[in-house]
Amino acid sequence: MAAPPFTRPRCLLPLMLGLFQGALLLFFALFVTYDESSLRAEDASSTNQVYTTFPFFQDIQVMLVVGLGLLLTFLPRYGLSALTHNFLLLNFSMQWALVLQGLLHHFQHGQIYLDLHKVLTAEFAAVTVLISVGAILGRTSPCQMLAMATCEVPIYLASEWVIINSLGVLDVGGTITIHIFSCYFGLGVSKALFGAAQPLHPKETPTPRSDLMSLVGMLILWVFWPSFVAVLCQPGDAQHRAILNTLLAMSASTVTTVVASSLLERDGRLSPGHLQNGSLAGGVAIGVVADMTMPPVAALALGTLSAVVCVLGFRFLTPFLGKKLALQDQCGIHNLHGLPGIVGATASVMVILAASKDTSRSHFSQLSPTGGNSSEVVGGQWGDHGVKGQASSQAAGLAVAISASLLSGLLTGAVLRLPCLARPPEQLCFDDSLYFKIQDHTESLTPVSTAEEVALALKE
Amino acid sequence: MAAPPFTRPRCLLPLMLGLFQGALLLFFALFVTYDESSLRAEDASSTNQVYTTFPFFQDIQVMLVVGLGLLLTFLPRYGLSALTHNFLLLNFSMQWALVLQGLLHHFQHGQIYLDLHKVLTAEFAAVTVLISVGAILGRTSPCQMLAMATCEVPIYLASEWVIINSLGVLDVGGTITIHIFSCYFGLGVSKALFGAAQPLHPKETPTPRSDLMSLVGMLILWVFWPSFVAVLCQPGDAQHRAILNTLLAMSASTVTTVVASSLLERDGRLSPGHLQNGSLAGGVAIGVVADMTMPPVAALALGTLSAVVCVLGFRFLTPFLGKKLALQDQCGIHNLHGLPGIVGATASVMVILAASKDTSRSHFSQLSPTGGNSSEVVGGQWGDHGVKGQASSQAAGLAVAISASLLSGLLTGAVLRLPCLARPPEQLCFDDSLYFKIQDHTESLTPVSTAEEVALALKE
Amino acid sequence: MAAPPFTRPRCLLPLMLGLFQGALLLFFALFVTYDESSLRAEDASSTNQVYTTFPFFQDIQVMLVVGLGLLLTFLPRYGLSALTHNFLLLNFSMQWALVLQGLLHHFQHGQIYLDLHKVLTAEFAAVTVLISVGAILGRTSPCQMLAMATCEVPIYLASEWVIINSLGVLDVGGTITIHIFSCYFGLGVSKALFGAAQPLHPKETPTPRSDLMSLVGMLILWVFWPSFVAVLCQPGDAQHRAILNTLLAMSASTVTTVVASSLLERDGRLSPGHLQNGSLAGGVAIGVVADMTMPPVAALALGTLSAVVCVLGFRFLTPFLGKKLALQDQCGIHNLHGLPGIVGATASVMVILAASKDTSRSHFSQLSPTGGNSSEVVGGQWGDHGVKGQASSQAAGLAVAISASLLSGLLTGAVLRLPCLARPPEQLCFDDSLYFKIQDHTESLTPVSTAEEVALALKE
Repeated sequence: MAAPPFTRPRCLLPLMLGLFQGALLLFFALFVTYDESSLRAEDASSTNQVYTTFPFFQDIQVMLVVGLGLLLTFLPRYGLSALTHNFLLLNFSMQWALVLQGLLHHFQHGQIYLDLHKVLTAEFAAVTVLISVGAILGRTSPCQMLAMATCEVPIYLASEWVIINSLGVLDVGGTITIHIFSCYFGLGVSKALFGAAQPLHPKETPTPRSDLMSLVGMLILWVFWPSFVAVLCQPGDAQHRAILNTLLAMSASTVTTVVASSLLERDGRLSPGHLQNGSLAGGVAIGVVADMTMPPVAALALGTLSAVVCVLGFRFLTPFLGKKLALQDQCGIHNLHGLPGIVGATASVMVILAASKDTSRSHFSQLSPTGGNSSEVVGGQWGDHGVKGQASSQAAGLAVAISASLLSGLLTGAVLRLPCLARPPEQLCFDDSLYFKIQDHTESLTPVSTAEEVALALKE
Repeated sequence: MAAPPFTRPRCLLPLMLGLFQGALLLFFALFVTYDESSLRAEDASSTNQVYTTFPFFQDIQVMLVVGLGLLLTFLPRYGLSALTHNFLLLNFSMQWALVLQGLLHHFQHGQIYLDLHKVLTAEFAAVTVLISVGAILGRTSPCQMLAMATCEVPIYLASEWVIINSLGVLDVGGTITIHIFSCYFGLGVSKALFGAAQPLHPKETPTPRSDLMSLVGMLILWVFWPSFVAVLCQPGDAQHRAILNTLLAMSASTVTTVVASSLLERDGRLSPGHLQNGSLAGGVAIGVVADMTMPPVAALALGTLSAVVCVLGFRFLTPFLGKKLALQDQCGIHNLHGLPGIVGATASVMVILAASKDTSRSHFSQLSPTGGNSSEVVGGQWGDHGVKGQASSQAAGLAVAISASLLSGLLTGAVLRLPCLARPPEQLCFDDSLYFKIQDHTESLTPVSTAEEVALALKE
Repeated sequence: MAAPPFTRPRCLLPLMLGLFQGALLLFFALFVTYDESSLRAEDASSTNQVYTTFPFFQDIQVMLVVGLGLLLTFLPRYGLSALTHNFLLLNFSMQWALVLQGLLHHFQHGQIYLDLHKVLTAEFAAVTVLISVGAILGRTSPCQMLAMATCEVPIYLASEWVIINSLGVLDVGGTITIHIFSCYFGLGVSKALFGAAQPLHPKETPTPRSDLMSLVGMLILWVFWPSFVAVLCQPGDAQHRAILNTLLAMSASTVTTVVASSLLERDGRLSPGHLQNGSLAGGVAIGVVADMTMPPVAALALGTLSAVVCVLGFRFLTPFLGKKLALQDQCGIHNLHGLPGIVGATASVMVILAASKDTSRSHFSQLSPTGGNSSEVVGGQWGDHGVKGQASSQAAGLAVAISASLLSGLLTGAVLRLPCLARPPEQLCFDDSLYFKIQDHTESLTPVSTAEEVALALKE
C-alpha cells in the first residue's frame, strides 16, 4: 500500500556510501602510496610544498567547509541539511576525484603517488559538485546529490582536460573550468530533474536570522577567495598579481552590489540575497585573468561589471527563466557563477587582444627574462598560438564548457529521476526533519530563568 | 506633503557610492599600476612579500570582515545592518585610502605603484572608520556613515603622518595612531551629531542569542589580534616578540575581565558586554610597546590593567559621560579603544624611560649589532632624540592624536547633521527592516514537521 | 537562613582568579624572560620559528577558541556559558601550564626563557582541560572547573613526561598523551563528582539551532585539525605525511559517520550529535601514527574504524555506562576521545610491528640517510628498543595514560565535591542566567517593523 518507495532510501544512502567507502579502501590498498621519493629526496622542495601550498589549502578548506556551508543556510528550516550535505559531498567528491584523477593522470608503474597538490586538485573537482548542487538545493535527497556527484566528477575531469590541455586555455582561477562548467551542469540537472516550474514553498523564504548566517558564510568566502584564485599560480610575481587583482575585483563588487541592489529594490532597501552573491561575483570573474598582465583598473572594472550582471540576473533573468523555461535555480548559481564567469571569459579574450595591440609590448618583453612565472608562459604560448590563437582558445574553452556541461547535466538530471533515489515529497522539502533526528519544539523550551527564580532556587 | 526628506536617501546612497566608484575607476585608469619592477626584478623579496605578509593580511581580513562584523551584531534586530555596513565601510574606506595615500606618499612620475603592502596600510586606515562608527551604530544612516568615512580617512592619514613621521612616535600596533585617534574621532562625531542624550531604545538591548554571536566575533578578533599587531614589525626578532607580548597581554585581559566583571555585577554574574570588550583591551594597549624590549611581565601587567580600566569604564565612566556630557557611545569604544589606548601610550613612555635607567643597557647594546630589527631602530632613534626626547615624543603623539581627532570629529559630526544624509527616525533605529528587504515573520514559519507528519507525508 | 553556601561563589571565582593572576604576575616578574639570545643570535632559525610555527599556532587557536567553543554550544540555554568557560579555562590553564612546565623543564640559571614553542606546548596542556570538562559540562560551576584545571595541568605534565620521556612512546599528535589522558581524567572526575545517575534535564536537549552552531564548531575543528597533528612534527617529510594522513583519516570518518548514523537511527535519519563527533574521530585516532611510514590506506582505514567505534559508542556504550556505572558523560568525550584514542594507540603498535615484518625494510632504510625527520628518529629508537620494545612502549603508554588519568580524575572529582566550590542546583543547570547578566525575554522583543510601519514612520 505505502512506504516501499520510501523505506528504501533509509538503506540506500548508507548502502551507496558504504560500498563506495569499501571500494575506496580496496583501491587505496592496491594502488595508492605516498611519493616517498618526492617527500624525501628533494628535501627543500618538499618543505616548500608544505609551506607554500598548505596555508592556501587551509584557506580553501575554510571556504568550502565553513563559508560555503553557511552561505547555503539561508533556508531557515534546512540549515543542518545544507551544512551537512555540503560537507558530505565535499568529502565524497574529493575521494572520488582522487581515484579518478589518479587513474587518468598519475598512474605510474601501477601506483598512484599521493601528495598535497593532488589532494588540492581533487578538492577543486569537488567544488564543481558543491556549486552545481545549489541549483537543486532543498528539493533533492542525499542519494540524488551523491548520484549527481558520481556523474559530475568524471565529466569535470574530462572537460577540464580538454579545456586546459587540448585547447590550451589559460584559466588559473577556474572561472571557465570550474564556475561556468558547474553552473550549466547544475542548471541542466535542474531542468531535467524538475521539468515543470516548482511552486513557491512556504519554507523557502529566508528569515532575518538565516540571512545573517548566510551573510557570515559569504564574508568567509569573500575573505579567503584570493587564496582560491592564487593557489595554483606560479609563486612570486604571478601569485602576487593574482592576489591583488582578486582583492580589487571583489572590493569593487561589494560596493557595486550595494549600488545596484538599492537601485533595483523598492524604497532603496538592500536585498540580502543580492549581497550574499553579488559581493562574490568579482571573484568568479577575475579567476581567468587574475595572473595576466593587465592594469589594476581592469580588475576593478571586471568586479564592477560582474556585480552589476549578477544583481540584474537575480532581479530579472532568474524570474524570466523560471517563467519561460520553468528553470529552477534555488541558490541563483546562474547569477553568481554563470554570468560573471562569462564576463570573465570574455574579459580574458580582450586582455589577450589588448596586450598584443600594446605596441611597445613592454610588459611581456620585460617579463620574459624572469623565468618561471605564468605570464611568461602566457608569452610563450602566444609565441606558439599567436595572440589570436590564444584569444580564440579562450572563446572555444568557454563554448566547450557551456555545451558539455549543459548536455551532461541534462543527462545526469534524467538519471536523478530514478525513483529509487527517493526525491522528497513537496511538503517535506526544505525541512531538516526529513533527514535529521531533531526535536520539534519551535524553541518552545522552558524560558531562561528570571532573576527571581534564580534567587529562589539558590535559597533552597 | 510628506516623504521628500525620505525619498531622497533611496537615491542618495547609490548616487554617492556610484559616483565614488566611477571616480575610482577613472583614477585607477589614469594613475595606478602594478609595480612590475618590484614584482619582478627582486624576485626573492617579492616572493617574500607574498609569503611573509599575505598570511598576516588574511588574518587581519578575517578580523575586520568576520570578527568585527559579528562583534557588532549584539543589537538583536540590527544584525544584517551591522554586518553589512561594517563590510561596506571597510571596502569603501580601503579604496578611498588607496587613492589618498597614493597621492600623498607614493606618487612617482605620475604613477602610483600598487602592491600588497599598500593595500594593507589602506586597510589600516579603514580600521579607524570601523572603530569610530561604533559610537554611533544603529542611529545613523549608511549615507551618514559614508560621509563620516569620507572625512575620517584623510584626517587619519594626516594625523598618522604627523605622529609617526614628524614626531617620530613608535607605535607598531597602531595604539595611538589607530585606536586612540578613531575613538576620540567617533566620540566627537557622536557629540556633534546627537547633541542631547538619547533615550534607551527598546531594540537596543541584546538578547542571549545576539550576545552569543557577538561573543563569537570577539573570539575571532582575539585569536587573530597578534597578526594585527605584528604584521608591520621587522621580521624575525621584533615580530616574534610582538606576537608573544600580544598573546600574554590578551590572555591576562581575559582572566582579569572575568574577575573585574564578576566583582562589579550584581550576584557575581558576568556581563556579556564586559567580556566582549575587556578580553580585547590588552590587544589595544600592547600595540604601542609590542616590539620594544621589555620583560614578559610588563605585557601581562599591561593586559591586566587595561582590562580593569575597560570594565570600570563600562560600569562607571560611560553612564557618567552619558549623564554629564550627554555623550552617546553605543558600543563603548571609549572603554575598548580610548582608555586602554591611553594606558598603552603611558606604558610606552615608561618602558622607554625604564630602558634608559637600565644602567647596563644590555638589551639595547646587544641588539644593536644585529641590524634590521625595529628595536635597533629604537636604539637608533634614542641616539638621535635621546631617551627623554623619545619619551616626550610618545606623550606628544598621544596629545596630538586625542586633540586632532576630537576636533575633527566634532566638525565631521556637524556635517553629518545635514538633513540630506537622512538620519533615521528614532522608532526605526536599530532595525534591519529600514535598510533590508526582509520578511516580517518573527520566526512565525510553519514549525518543523513532527515525526508523525513526516511519516504521514512519506506514506502518501 | 539561606544563601551562605551561595553567596560565597560570588566572591570565590574572582578571588581564585585574582589570586592566581597576582601570583602569575609575581612569578613572571621574578623568573620569566624572553630568550633574547635565541630570539636574536640565530636570526634565521628565529625567523623560522615565527614563519613555520606561527601559522600552525594560529590554526590551533582558532580550533580551541572558536571551534571547540562553538561545538559546546549544543546546549541551547547554555551557549554563553559554554563559549566563555571554554575560553576562560583555555587562558587559565595555558598560563598555569607555562608556569609549571617552566619550573619543570626550562628552569636555567633561575630564569625561564619564553618563546612561541613554549606557549604552544602550554596550550597543548590546556587542551586536556578543555576535553575533560566535556564530561561534566553544564552541571558544574566555574569554580569547580578552575579547581579541576588546577589539578589536571600538573598531572598531565607528569603523565606526559613519563609517557614520552621515560617510556619513549611515539605520539606526535597527542592521541595517548592528550586525548586518552583527558578523556579518562574527565570520566574519573565525573564519576567521583556526581556519583549517582543524573536525571535528564529539560534544558539538556539540543534545538535545531543549537545543533547548527555546534555543527559549525565541528567544521572549524575538522578544517584545522591537520595543523594540530602536524605542528610538532619534524618539518618537511614527516610534516607533509602527517598532514596527508590526517586529511585522509578525517575524510573517511566523515563519510563513515553518515553511514553508521543512518544505519543506527530510526528511519535512516542522521543524529546531529553523531556528526558533531564522528567526523572528528579520525583526527583523534591518527595522531599517534600520523608521521609514521605507513600506506595511505592505513589512514583511511583508521578513520573509518574510529568513526564506527565513535557512533557505536554514542548509540550503545554511553547509555550502558550511564545505566550500569551511573557514569555521566555530557558531551560523549569517551566516544570522541577515549575509544578512537584506543583504536589509534592499538594501530600504532600494529604499524610498528608491520614495519618490522616488511623484510625489505625499504622505507626505513631509505629514510635513514636523510637526517632530521622523525621517521629516522623512529628508526633510531627502534634500533635502541628494538621493534618489539617500541611496540610494547606504545602499549605501556596507553596503559599508563588510562590508569593514571582515571585515578587522578577520581581524586580530583572528590576535591570538586567541596561545598565551597558551589555546584549549581539541579534546576539551574544548563542555564546561562545563573552566570550571566542577561535579559529574560524569550525573544519577546517588539517584532521587526512591517513595511507599512516603516512607511508610516518615514512620513512623520
